[in-house]
Amino acid sequence: MKKNYLLTPGPTPLPPEVCESLSRPIIHHRTPQFQAILKEAYEGLRYVFQTSNEVFILASSGTGGLEAAMINFLSPGDTVITVDAGKFGERWAEIGKAYGINCEVIKVEWGKAVNPKDIEAILKAGKGKIKAVYTTLCETSTGVATDIKAIGEVVKATEAILVVDAVSGLGAIDLQADGWNCDVVVSGSQKGLMLPPGLGFISVSPKAWKLAESSKCPKYYFDLKAAKKAYVSTDTPWTPAIGLVIALNEAIKLMRAEGLEKIFSWHNKMAEAVRSAVKVLGLELFAPDAYSDVVTAVKVPAGIDGEKLVKTMRDSYGVTIAGGQSEMKGKIFRFAHMGYIGEFDIISGISCLEKVLQQMGYKFELGTGVAAAEKVFLKA
Amino acid sequence: MKKNYLLTPGPTPLPPEVCESLSRPIIHHRTPQFQAILKEAYEGLRYVFQTSNEVFILASSGTGGLEAAMINFLSPGDTVITVDAGKFGERWAEIGKAYGINCEVIKVEWGKAVNPKDIEAILKAGKGKIKAVYTTLCETSTGVATDIKAIGEVVKATEAILVVDAVSGLGAIDLQADGWNCDVVVSGSQKGLMLPPGLGFISVSPKAWKLAESSKCPKYYFDLKAAKKAYVSTDTPWTPAIGLVIALNEAIKLMRAEGLEKIFSWHNKMAEAVRSAVKVLGLELFAPDAYSDVVTAVKVPAGIDGEKLVKTMRDSYGVTIAGGQSEMKGKIFRFAHMGYIGEFDIISGISCLEKVLQQMGYKFELGTGVAAAEKVFLKA
Repeated sequence: MKKNYLLTPGPTPLPPEVCESLSRPIIHHRTPQFQAILKEAYEGLRYVFQTSNEVFILASSGTGGLEAAMINFLSPGDTVITVDAGKFGERWAEIGKAYGINCEVIKVEWGKAVNPKDIEAILKAGKGKIKAVYTTLCETSTGVATDIKAIGEVVKATEAILVVDAVSGLGAIDLQADGWNCDVVVSGSQKGLMLPPGLGFISVSPKAWKLAESSKCPKYYFDLKAAKKAYVSTDTPWTPAIGLVIALNEAIKLMRAEGLEKIFSWHNKMAEAVRSAVKVLGLELFAPDAYSDVVTAVKVPAGIDGEKLVKTMRDSYGVTIAGGQSEMKGKIFRFAHMGYIGEFDIISGISCLEKVLQQMGYKFELGTGVAAAEKVFLKA
Repeated sequence: MKKNYLLTPGPTPLPPEVCESLSRPIIHHRTPQFQAILKEAYEGLRYVFQTSNEVFILASSGTGGLEAAMINFLSPGDTVITVDAGKFGERWAEIGKAYGINCEVIKVEWGKAVNPKDIEAILKAGKGKIKAVYTTLCETSTGVATDIKAIGEVVKATEAILVVDAVSGLGAIDLQADGWNCDVVVSGSQKGLMLPPGLGFISVSPKAWKLAESSKCPKYYFDLKAAKKAYVSTDTPWTPAIGLVIALNEAIKLMRAEGLEKIFSWHNKMAEAVRSAVKVLGLELFAPDAYSDVVTAVKVPAGIDGEKLVKTMRDSYGVTIAGGQSEMKGKIFRFAHMGYIGEFDIISGISCLEKVLQQMGYKFELGTGVAAAEKVFLKA
């Protein structure tokens, strides 16, 4: 009977329209019926990605999309820049290493955002040898948002392509694939798109297709040339995750009805409410200079067991937030406000945080966090 | 208002318990709650695969599992045998080519099964150089079943591993991963397992793990060493397709309640009914010597437009069967009887086939196909 409240940076809660669509009888994928669905999905993704490029649908989690974003454009021995500002930025170099790519890693302190000037300097020093720049829109492990627009300005002047891991953030905060000169944008289903995990998405610009021509990394399942060949006849090269694609259309229908601008501003409001609440509770933001509007990382106060805090909220009271990953285990907690989240989900989460902090002996006036959030929402 | 009847060799119809589970609110994957689900899924898959080896769950379609079954055990330049008896057997060599594997392709005429002696001869001639034998349990494109047990006897005596594409067939016809000496077995969710597409499964024997040690094919998303590391702590390396894994447990619960033996014999009965009906209608089986019990391929009679037959059944009457693929386009149709299919689904399919054949001018006595199938079921 315990009720669950999900406030994690992926998966995010499913709208009832999505849940319902997932329960429908399955249909076959090589039919006019599914082709119409796929056409709508391709169009919907272009809307969400803010692009006129193709956006491919992969049956994979986001990491499969990241791999596709390397192996389709590079050859062993190629040099690229990867920005490592946390656990997900780190993954770019791991994939690169697996495929013999020479990654010039810009290591950024956890909780900070990369400085576009650092990318510019390496691109200049590389004298045209750098094939691509791999970045992360929202580094889920730290809650940091990257200034993709500024990086786009830097990269567009060079021969390198700009690749953005937007698994976390796309559809919740602004990312203009075309407007910001992003050549390849990767996303996944279980975050801003309000679906279960199991779909990866990847958009490809003409500049990136040109680079793809000379790519020699071996590939099959994630070969985007095969995906493109199928795309032009509104198909997929392998059996698609039919049910999730149908649900994707339901999610995008909701997003279109709301409009991207309103969605982005709502995420900003939720994030402000959470930031405001944690400050009033005397807690410190982990990324005060570069926080994102989809997940807020907060330092665990001295004397409090951070892992126990997250565990108690979840196992005793049904409120799931995320703890710290890797080096930040126990040192931060991450309160997500992404996707299908309403004002009173945020209030519930803060209330539970207050409850457990009090139980653990942390001193503050009960209700003040909630009141601070309420104030933000009231002004909205 | 048109009702759909799905009789294709994947996806197959979903049981209501599976549909319902797919519509539930999503939960987070790094929780004790999901860990219990994953534990049950891993156990359930070992039951269905009839193995004591690990069975990994991939967020991918079956083709992703096929790729994993090559790149985790081989290095560029390695020599393997691939059996190509249709569109799916062909895929092994395509993947091999993408990764620089030297594939000795045993080309089998469409509609026939490979002779295990042919595999034995090449293994002998290879003098220990052949690293693996890649086969297909049920070649969906032709409806042919392969004698995996006999091939297992041949391969087990050598240093090569036996890899079986059991995407089509597993859980519907017998395949004993351990009992038949299959080192690697690949499957997918949308066939015998009665789920939407989006999950790949792969089991790995100790002999295959030994070969994996020296594998030099590049890999990341499909790296089974990463999967194994996660598996031992009941986890997955990347975000799993949470909803599909939950549904997997529902499907396996149904399968356990029925028992594999009963499921296999039911598939045999359905297949007999279909074979019996098409014979009575004067149609010819495409694979009279090697038919499977999950999908029956039937030759389109002279003077009948095979593509139109399938299209009319589907678009006019809502009954979806499959047409021929590649070189068999228009020449055969494929009537599937796999997964969550009942006696009267078969009757419906045959009745619709009779109707459209009559409309297209093919001569036979209406109702005789249905009667032949009824006779088989009555005897059951």
